[in-house]
Formats: sequence, structure tokens, C-alpha cells
Amino acid sequence: MARKDTTIVLKFGGSSVADVKCIERISKIALKEAQEHNVIVVTSAMGKSTNQLIDLANQACPGCSGRELDMLLATGELVSISLTAMTIQRLGHAAVSLTGWQAGFVTESSHNRARIAEIKCDRINKHLDLGEIVIVAGFQGITEDGEVTTLGRGGSDTSAVALASAFNADRCDIYTDVDGVFTTDPRLVKEATKLSHISYEEMIELASLGAKVLHPRSVELAKKYNIDLRVRNSFNSENEGTRVISLKRMLDMELTKAVTGVALDTKQAKIAIINVADRPGIASKVFGELGKNKINVDMIIQSVPRDGINDIAFTVPREDMELARKTCEEILKDIEGSKVEADDDIAKVSIVGAGMLNRPGVASNLFETLSNAGINIQMISTSEIKISCLIDEVNAEKAVQVIHDAFELEKSSEPIIV
Amino acid sequence: MARKDTTIVLKFGGSSVADVKCIERISKIALKEAQEHNVIVVTSAMGKSTNQLIDLANQACPGCSGRELDMLLATGELVSISLTAMTIQRLGHAAVSLTGWQAGFVTESSHNRARIAEIKCDRINKHLDLGEIVIVAGFQGITEDGEVTTLGRGGSDTSAVALASAFNADRCDIYTDVDGVFTTDPRLVKEATKLSHISYEEMIELASLGAKVLHPRSVELAKKYNIDLRVRNSFNSENEGTRVISLKRMLDMELTKAVTGVALDTKQAKIAIINVADRPGIASKVFGELGKNKINVDMIIQSVPRDGINDIAFTVPREDMELARKTCEEILKDIEGSKVEADDDIAKVSIVGAGMLNRPGVASNLFETLSNAGINIQMISTSEIKISCLIDEVNAEKAVQVIHDAFELEKSSEPIIV
Repeated sequence: MARKDTTIVLKFGGSSVADVKCIERISKIALKEAQEHNVIVVTSAMGKSTNQLIDLANQACPGCSGRELDMLLATGELVSISLTAMTIQRLGHAAVSLTGWQAGFVTESSHNRARIAEIKCDRINKHLDLGEIVIVAGFQGITEDGEVTTLGRGGSDTSAVALASAFNADRCDIYTDVDGVFTTDPRLVKEATKLSHISYEEMIELASLGAKVLHPRSVELAKKYNIDLRVRNSFNSENEGTRVISLKRMLDMELTKAVTGVALDTKQAKIAIINVADRPGIASKVFGELGKNKINVDMIIQSVPRDGINDIAFTVPREDMELARKTCEEILKDIEGSKVEADDDIAKVSIVGAGMLNRPGVASNLFETLSNAGINIQMISTSEIKISCLIDEVNAEKAVQVIHDAFELEKSSEPIIV
Repeated sequence: MARKDTTIVLKFGGSSVADVKCIERISKIALKEAQEHNVIVVTSAMGKSTNQLIDLANQACPGCSGRELDMLLATGELVSISLTAMTIQRLGHAAVSLTGWQAGFVTESSHNRARIAEIKCDRINKHLDLGEIVIVAGFQGITEDGEVTTLGRGGSDTSAVALASAFNADRCDIYTDVDGVFTTDPRLVKEATKLSHISYEEMIELASLGAKVLHPRSVELAKKYNIDLRVRNSFNSENEGTRVISLKRMLDMELTKAVTGVALDTKQAKIAIINVADRPGIASKVFGELGKNKINVDMIIQSVPRDGINDIAFTVPREDMELARKTCEEILKDIEGSKVEADDDIAKVSIVGAGMLNRPGVASNLFETLSNAGINIQMISTSEIKISCLIDEVNAEKAVQVIHDAFELEKSSEPIIV
């Protein structure tokens, strides 16, 4: 068997390789694609095995991180790649599994969240030349010094997109356990429909907002190299899934709608610092201290000053709420604030749509929809293609439903992009 | 912390690293030794995890072997080394885990049973220079081509002894879940006593005979490089264990007894080929065909020829009995035999003792002991320091008990070897 003219990358997430039966299913997908293309498969660790390894690490050394955690976590993908290679061999096709270092993934040296510096293509090319299906361990690499690293959250998706770029792949299919990207979470809104296409930009916003199908980091990379990315279902591989393409291409084809999807994030908490002095340096002091404690801040609101004082409010990951509160209380005297309030009964509901760019009135429609439903908005933040509102958590699901209805997302058409 | 003058290797088997609590126990042993020595730790995979991986492999691809199986199996030790390094760090000592390839284990390329070709010491030396406890994944290495290999049965013990040789270690302690090497299996004979010392030669015979504390391959290597090997209990590390030393040293110190231990092997089966022609080439035909089918033959008896015919009997691993029977039946016509008999209701009981070398009468004492107990001997084989008898399996435990009594093994003295 010789090398073919086209190469594709297929990435299978944890639920797609959860057991030997799942691995057989995805092996058949790889075999089918191998009739036409050179196939590079990237797998995540099986099912929940990464979480189990993290549990073990926390038992051995609570809060452990760094080099040894990477050594441990990188084993998960080695199990899934070798089982996949064995299965493909049993099904009758030549196959070889490669660890991150064997596959040529050179990373920077920051453990637990290393960035890919380079992919050395020689070894994979050697196997593709032999007509073998190459199965690469996602999520991992090696430093120039020979230390095993992992790529952190979204790592396996990022491995796949980086390979698609390095091997100039025709396609990068990211297989998960749902049919593609939906207008919103189908568990929340039964009318949610699958999108046939979405732009990188919208996907990044949706991913950042808690739609877990694709990690924003991998979409950023796909955007940078203009990779033909698809989100597909390994349990229903006949479905074409959702294609992620450039915004320009979508605009050219007039495929954009005002609103593409609704996302819900219930994992944030709100911190408010009340009656802060209105003078330069206050915000940088607050967010500087939070940054020192490695707390990611998402939405930020600073109220209009009144009588030389104002309020600063922001959201943080819920698990960081107490640390954020404590951090702010420690600097409260410095910034002349009167008190710190923390609230984790909140949710962030967001609409994303490239079509907002040239359609006025989307924001007011959103606010009116929430108002009509009796839902109070605590904070608002916007980007060019996104509007997020912070509301009481109790109203979260209702908000998604009424927004989905108001923007008629169930009517999502399914045009074919050629 | 700087490098110390002496280096020791500590190897911990699967039961010694079965869970996080066990790993903490062995970490403390390493810490204690690190007060005086440079410490290189070798771990096996946790508990039964290698068996679990083999089960997965058999589900994915029944009977799979070779490269992909090595990729899979090598993950087990990566989990135990990283958890051990984390635990030692938590207990306050610098530590680093190294995979087989990071530790410099270069092997030949035969997968699943690779032999160590070389240990490149640079990387371990670098970490020892920093005062770190180095934890090395046992059982694995890498070929010159960058393929992950495993060493097969006894691999982790062999990794440890090879490191002890490469680093000129003062000691190589093999930790398991028993106090050392016993005169026989304490589950069979309650008077079984721990040996304070045993020669490499006796240990090899005992290990080959089914006493599972040390793999003969690792003892061969220890003998070759005269490594001060000790078998110790990670659950009772105060106990000095059993020292394995050279036969010459034991003889010099007059430490040998006629019989050191009794071993029982109930995992063999007997094959007998009846009425075979008595002419050259018959034995080579029989054992040649068995070898082609990768069947290991242990005891072999060829009876004294009578009227131009004789019988050939031999033992094989029990799981290979049917294949061995079939192999012999296929060549029965060629060798002019009349029939093939197979029997798996047999057991091999053996006595081992370097003291046999200059004490006549040991064999007759053994045969008389079995005879007095009404136990019939089917086959006998001997080496310089071993006598094995094949008996009915039903008599196995009784045989061990009467032999243990007859040679007064419960009186095992415990001289201190300095």
C-alpha cells in the first residue's frame, strides 16, 4: 500500500474511545476514510480516565502539578492509541501508534499547559509512506530537553488541528458524542437545531461561553491556518456534522444569521467591590492582585462614578470565588472601598452571531426578550459578535428558551456549503 | 543537596505499589535510605494493572502481541513512577520520575521480551548529582529506532539489577510482600522459615521452580555482576530479608546446608510417547517440532531401550499440554511410536541446596522420604544443586511437608553474613 494524494486528520474525544467497543467503532471510521486518504488519527484518553489519573495524583500529593503530573496524565492517551492501533490491525489495515514525542510534537517547557512549538514530520511521514494509518497520542509532547509535557485544556483538539496544519490536511474532523454544534444545548431547549456551518469566530465565542464541543484554543489555531474543521459524531458518523469555516466565506455566501447560537455558563461567580475611590490605578490594582493569584476574570463592569466613588463588579470561575473575595478584601483599604460582595447564584447567558455585525437591533431585541420574561439583567458585556448578560441562576434555563424562541433559532436552515 | 558516596537501587513490585497508601509506605523507605545513599527506585506497575491492560489488549485484538502491546503495557509503570515521585516530593525530598527511555534503557528490538543492550547513565547521573531520588520505570526500554519495548517476565527485577550494575550500586533491594526467601511456601508448610542468605545458584533453581519472589533472569544478571541482592518486604521493612550472594562466598563461610529449600510446581503437564523406535534422530525430531511451536520443555526422560524400542516422557507448561500432545501425534508415524499420553494431574517437587555438592546421600534420603510417605515418583531429574521429582498432584502438599520435615528445614539457622 502506498501513500495517497490527500491527508485527513480524525480526532476522537474521550467518549468516542470510552471502551473497546467504542474503539472498534472509530477504527471502522478510520478504515473507511483510509480508502481515499492518508489518515492520521488523534485520540484522547479513554472516557473518564484522565479524571481518574487526576484523582490518583491528588491522593498522592494534593494540588500537585508540574512535571510529574504530566508524566502521569500523558499515560492516558498511550492506552487509547495502542488499543486503537491493535483494533485497526485486527480489522485488516496496517496501523501504528505514536506517542507525542514519537510523533514529533515539540513543546515549550511549561508543564500542564505547554504550547506546541513545532511538529517534526519525519516519523509520521515515514509511516504514511508505508500506507499505515497513524494513531497519535493527543494532548502531549516533549520539550527539547526530553521532558514529557501536556498541552492542558483542549489539548487533544489542538494536537489534531496542529497536525492538520503541519500535514496540509484536506480536513480535520473532530469526533465527539453529539451530531455537531447546536443553536443551544439540546438538553435545555428541545427545539435546538444542529448548525450545518459556523464561522471560526462564532465558534470561538460559543466555545469560550461553555459550549463544550470544541476548545477555543483549537479553533483559534484552525482559524490561523484556515483548516477545514468539522465537528462530527462518532456514534452517528453518517451525519455530516458542523463545518467550521472562515467568517469571510460565510459572509460571502450570505450564510450568516443575526444570531447563530445561545450559550449558557453557570460556572461563574460575581464579585462586587462597593464604593471604590474614583481615581487612576484602582482597576489595575484590583485586577493586578487577582492576576497574581492566577484568577481568570471574565466580565468586568465599572459603574459611572458618582460623587467621586463608583462600584467595580466582575465575574470569576466559581471555584475561585472565595480566593477572589479574600484578595479584594485584602486591598480594600488601599482602594478605599467600603465592602466586597460575592454571589455565585448567577448565570451568564450569551448570544453569538456573525450576523450582528451588520444587523442593528439585536441587542435591544435580546434585552426586551429577557425583560418580557421578567428576568433582570445584572451585567452586560459585548463583543462584535457576542452579547452576554449576567442573570440570576434560577432564571438561566428559562432565559435560554425565550432567547432561542425570540431569534427563531429552531428555523436554522441547513444550506450546503460547497 | 549533593551527591553521596554510595548508591543503592530499591525495586518495588506491584503489591508494594498497589495503591496510594502503599506508595507512601515505599516512599518512606526511599527517604530513609536517601539519608545515607544516592537512591535509584525502580517500580513495577500498580497491583494488577498490567493484567488489566493485557485484558484490554485481548478484547481489542485477541492474541495481539508485538509493538502495540509494548506501547500499552509500558504505561503501567509510568503511572507508578509519577505517583511515587509526587509522594516523595510531598514528603519533602527532591525526586524525579524517568521513563525507560529517559532513564537510558536501550534494548534489542524484540518486542514483549526485549533484552537490555545498554544503560546510558547520563540522565540519571544528572539527577543524582542534584541530590534527587530518581524513580525509574521498570520493565521497559527503547530501541535504537525509538520504539518502546518491554522486557517480558521478570522485567522489573532485571531493570533493577541492571541499574545496580551500571551504577556500581552497593546494594540492590528487591521489595515484595513477603519477608524474604523461605525454605518453602509458608502457605504449604507452617514451619517454613526465612533464609538469611542463599546463593545466586540456589536462588536461580528455586526461582525457576516456581518460588515467585525473584525472576531467575534477574538473579542470573546479579550473579554475572556479583550484585549484593536482597529480597525484602515493603510491608515490614525493618526485617533484613534474604541476601543473595555468591556460592563461593557461602561455601567459604560454610554457610551451606545440604538442602536450602523445597519448591513445588503444579503448573506442568506430562507427555509420554510410548514405544518409540530406538534410533538416532528421534529425540531431535520430537523436541525440534515442540520448539517450532514455542513449547518450553522442562524435564525429559528417555527410558532404557528394550527390544529396539523405548519411551520418551517430558513435561511442558500445563497450558501447552494439548498443543504438545497434538504436535507429538502428528509425528507419531515418523518416529514409529505407538501412542501419546498426556497427564496434567502431576506436580513437580524439588529440593535445592548448594550443600548437595559435597554431601552424598541427599538423593537417596529424598527418595526414601517420599517412599515412606507412600508417594510414587514418576520422573526424576537432577542438576548439581537440585533434585526434582514428578509425582501425582494429589500428593503435592504432603510431599513438600514430609521433605521439609526430613531435611529439618525448620531449623534453618540465621547466621549474620558480614
